[in-house]
Amino acid sequence: MITEGLKGRDFLRLQDFSKAEIETMLEMGLKLKADTVMRRNHDDILPRRTLFMMFFNPSLRTRNSFEAGIFQLGGHAHFLEPSATRLPTLEGEDLGYSSERISDMARVLSRMGDALAIRILGDVVDWEYDKSFRIIEEFAKWSHVPVINMEDNKYHPCQGMADAMTLWEMFGKDLRGRKIGVTWTYGSSPKKPIAPHHDFMYMASLFGADIVFARPPEMRIDPEIEAQVKANVEANGGSYEVTETLEDAFEDADVVYAKNYVCLDLLPPVTSKPEKEEMMKLFNKYKDWIADEKRMNLAKPTAQYMHCLPCERGAEVSDAVLDGKWGAACFNEAENRLHAQKGVMASIIP
Amino acid sequence: MITEGLKGRDFLRLQDFSKAEIETMLEMGLKLKADTVMRRNHDDILPRRTLFMMFFNPSLRTRNSFEAGIFQLGGHAHFLEPSATRLPTLEGEDLGYSSERISDMARVLSRMGDALAIRILGDVVDWEYDKSFRIIEEFAKWSHVPVINMEDNKYHPCQGMADAMTLWEMFGKDLRGRKIGVTWTYGSSPKKPIAPHHDFMYMASLFGADIVFARPPEMRIDPEIEAQVKANVEANGGSYEVTETLEDAFEDADVVYAKNYVCLDLLPPVTSKPEKEEMMKLFNKYKDWIADEKRMNLAKPTAQYMHCLPCERGAEVSDAVLDGKWGAACFNEAENRLHAQKGVMASIIP
Amino acid sequence: MITEGLKGRDFLRLQDFSKAEIETMLEMGLKLKADTVMRRNHDDILPRRTLFMMFFNPSLRTRNSFEAGIFQLGGHAHFLEPSATRLPTLEGEDLGYSSERISDMARVLSRMGDALAIRILGDVVDWEYDKSFRIIEEFAKWSHVPVINMEDNKYHPCQGMADAMTLWEMFGKDLRGRKIGVTWTYGSSPKKPIAPHHDFMYMASLFGADIVFARPPEMRIDPEIEAQVKANVEANGGSYEVTETLEDAFEDADVVYAKNYVCLDLLPPVTSKPEKEEMMKLFNKYKDWIADEKRMNLAKPTAQYMHCLPCERGAEVSDAVLDGKWGAACFNEAENRLHAQKGVMASIIP
Repeated sequence: MITEGLKGRDFLRLQDFSKAEIETMLEMGLKLKADTVMRRNHDDILPRRTLFMMFFNPSLRTRNSFEAGIFQLGGHAHFLEPSATRLPTLEGEDLGYSSERISDMARVLSRMGDALAIRILGDVVDWEYDKSFRIIEEFAKWSHVPVINMEDNKYHPCQGMADAMTLWEMFGKDLRGRKIGVTWTYGSSPKKPIAPHHDFMYMASLFGADIVFARPPEMRIDPEIEAQVKANVEANGGSYEVTETLEDAFEDADVVYAKNYVCLDLLPPVTSKPEKEEMMKLFNKYKDWIADEKRMNLAKPTAQYMHCLPCERGAEVSDAVLDGKWGAACFNEAENRLHAQKGVMASIIP
Repeated sequence: MITEGLKGRDFLRLQDFSKAEIETMLEMGLKLKADTVMRRNHDDILPRRTLFMMFFNPSLRTRNSFEAGIFQLGGHAHFLEPSATRLPTLEGEDLGYSSERISDMARVLSRMGDALAIRILGDVVDWEYDKSFRIIEEFAKWSHVPVINMEDNKYHPCQGMADAMTLWEMFGKDLRGRKIGVTWTYGSSPKKPIAPHHDFMYMASLFGADIVFARPPEMRIDPEIEAQVKANVEANGGSYEVTETLEDAFEDADVVYAKNYVCLDLLPPVTSKPEKEEMMKLFNKYKDWIADEKRMNLAKPTAQYMHCLPCERGAEVSDAVLDGKWGAACFNEAENRLHAQKGVMASIIP
Repeated sequence: MITEGLKGRDFLRLQDFSKAEIETMLEMGLKLKADTVMRRNHDDILPRRTLFMMFFNPSLRTRNSFEAGIFQLGGHAHFLEPSATRLPTLEGEDLGYSSERISDMARVLSRMGDALAIRILGDVVDWEYDKSFRIIEEFAKWSHVPVINMEDNKYHPCQGMADAMTLWEMFGKDLRGRKIGVTWTYGSSPKKPIAPHHDFMYMASLFGADIVFARPPEMRIDPEIEAQVKANVEANGGSYEVTETLEDAFEDADVVYAKNYVCLDLLPPVTSKPEKEEMMKLFNKYKDWIADEKRMNLAKPTAQYMHCLPCERGAEVSDAVLDGKWGAACFNEAENRLHAQKGVMASIIP
């Protein structure tokens, strides 16, 4: 357990923290989860702290877990929708009275509260891959208080924390020897983010799992993340294998993480604009890529299905899987958003 | 006073509770109201509990009374608008990435908080009469925490509780011998809900009032509710009479409840789609059905006007009635939403 | 320090309070600011109080400073957007089921909470100059709890309080002998409010500053406010001078307050409807009216730039001014919204 160096830090990427720091924040989360089970009040941890949550995309889990979480710790969250404020802009993108420069918003909000959390991805930034994280970084640059990334096009570190907590609860902290199948699945819209895959694999590899990643040849992930995953298994005793056969991810797996995500090669910067029709044509070649009963039966008898939710039933996963014996981990994973983020907030918010 | 059997229950319909249970919740509400008068803090009742409020329709009274109420009890409400989440769907109605299955939303939210309140009616469900309650029931089926009905097409039990509290404050718990006039009135839109009428009459009859219900022949209420009202007066010592003469409801009345509501025979399932033009034609035949000074003067000198608000001045009720000596009960009724719902929450939320 | 006469008062206009009362509220705000620096909890000041915030215009500073402020004092704010309620209407403007009479909304909300704050201006009232304040006054007339003006077409008293606090922090309470330049600047939209100018000058004059106000001949302020500013300097030892030369406001100034605002002569009641195209034509004659480095260098070496924010960079003020040595006061001014409003709330909310 790390006792210093966390207070006041931004939480932008898992990659910004050492394994020991991540472990500490997860342990704090589990400690607070135990308190919650016993209804032990811990509102003395962040008393009267204000968290500003800026959402540029819809959210159920993220918003509610942060709002409930900071409240349980003694604070209060402001739910800020773009419709109720002005659009935050980078230098050179100002739109007169309907926008406000990020440097100004960040400096103002950080004078009025104690942390700033931001979700921005997808359509809102015209799918410019790097832009959403650049916006979050710009907030962090100007903010005097910690900034938390609630998901951009590339990273979803809060989800990664919840995923790791869920894996720990099933297998303990050491995932060596555990086979974790990860797959792309079909989905009926060209909009589902890839960030959850990135951070799920980052975390599974950080704790030494044997990852088998199945996806159609066109559905690569970010090579920078892939390199980090490889480095992680090298350092921590796991393995990473890529396959184009869906079933490879299921066979004898302890966990299968199966979810749709966008095709990076049909989005900027590879293309000049999002090629959504092309993407749906591509997806439609792989309509049978779904986590169904037949495939889950290839996994270990105790295997669990994971997905960050919301899932598209009938496309990504069958009702039988999600509502059957394989689905429990998925709802634990959702609940752990609350506990994992409380661990993060309790560790970094001064 | 009932001391067991309430904690952990859903609050979906008045009909799900015994008279003694309803009385207990109302008594708790009055106890908390007395605390409020004396500024006696009671935030130790539901400390750090989270209430998720899902609104699919606009609301002033309901939202603010729940949000203020849970706060006074020590908790916090999340105000969830459909624009900020995804559309909750029943099985077979999924819409890909823009919707989320109710079973999933309910399970996720009930892992993150302590109660779930829902308002859904009217246009949002294309006026399918039973559908809105079916949606609320589906949330209740999957939720691990109490679900509260904040109004559907048929039921508005929180309003019924506030109505009963207001009647108790005027007449005591025993309404026998009290004449309560209930009427349909004119309204300029084909959208006003019938649920408040249902639950007002359910409550007035439960406590033994003499109900005289005036409405045009086309403006029937739900026969299931009407049968319950008749059973209630039979069991509790009151009476129930239907008339097509507006003045009958006012003559010698202790209270007149006068409000517009939709015509059930011009909505699904009777018709295949909402017949809004037909409905306005029908309403326009009865433009003089208004609670005005002349008619209120037919009632007892101490008589009060009641309406769940918002009311349409000049259509349902005249300014002279609402702003004159008859209007006080109406604003007590609105305020009692706060106290009655606190009684419900304090009784059922674990 | 005034110890009586404030609890229960509305906060609609600075003009409704004596200088001693304004000083007391500012002193309370500074006392609470000192607590905040030392992380001294003061949530026993307004425990479990509810503040209803009704916004008919976007807001970053106002919403977040009120919501964080009441929370730090022990209370809770409801963020009410028009989309989630019905439109509040004056008598004679009712719109059936989509609106609700202000008298009814005010009476209902004041039964459920402890204070009511309202922002309404500009497009929402079709720029009818007096109408927005009339609406706020109507709420105050019917509300049983204090009403706070969060900005209308003419007044922005909360901003005025924050401005005064910022000036006090720089110069002490006595502004005699301090030159404060005030100017209209260019802006690219015909929408920026004039209220902040009004209340800035009201406050600067109340504490005896020497105001030099530069604006194009067409850009007059409200003559009623101008008369009050003159009376203030007469009574408090300052001076007030109007000029049409921008540089006059900067020369040897201790502070320059430079911001765009609408042309009152191109809005109702002077014109029958907002003449937005005319206004932009007029503004475009004065594109060089900007607070830039060159002009700020005419001021004292320690001079600061002030603006209520959000500002339009490149139009009202240059990046070099706002992000350079002159910009600090501007962000202090924004932060002081929080502290000044806490002083107001702690003083007036019972």
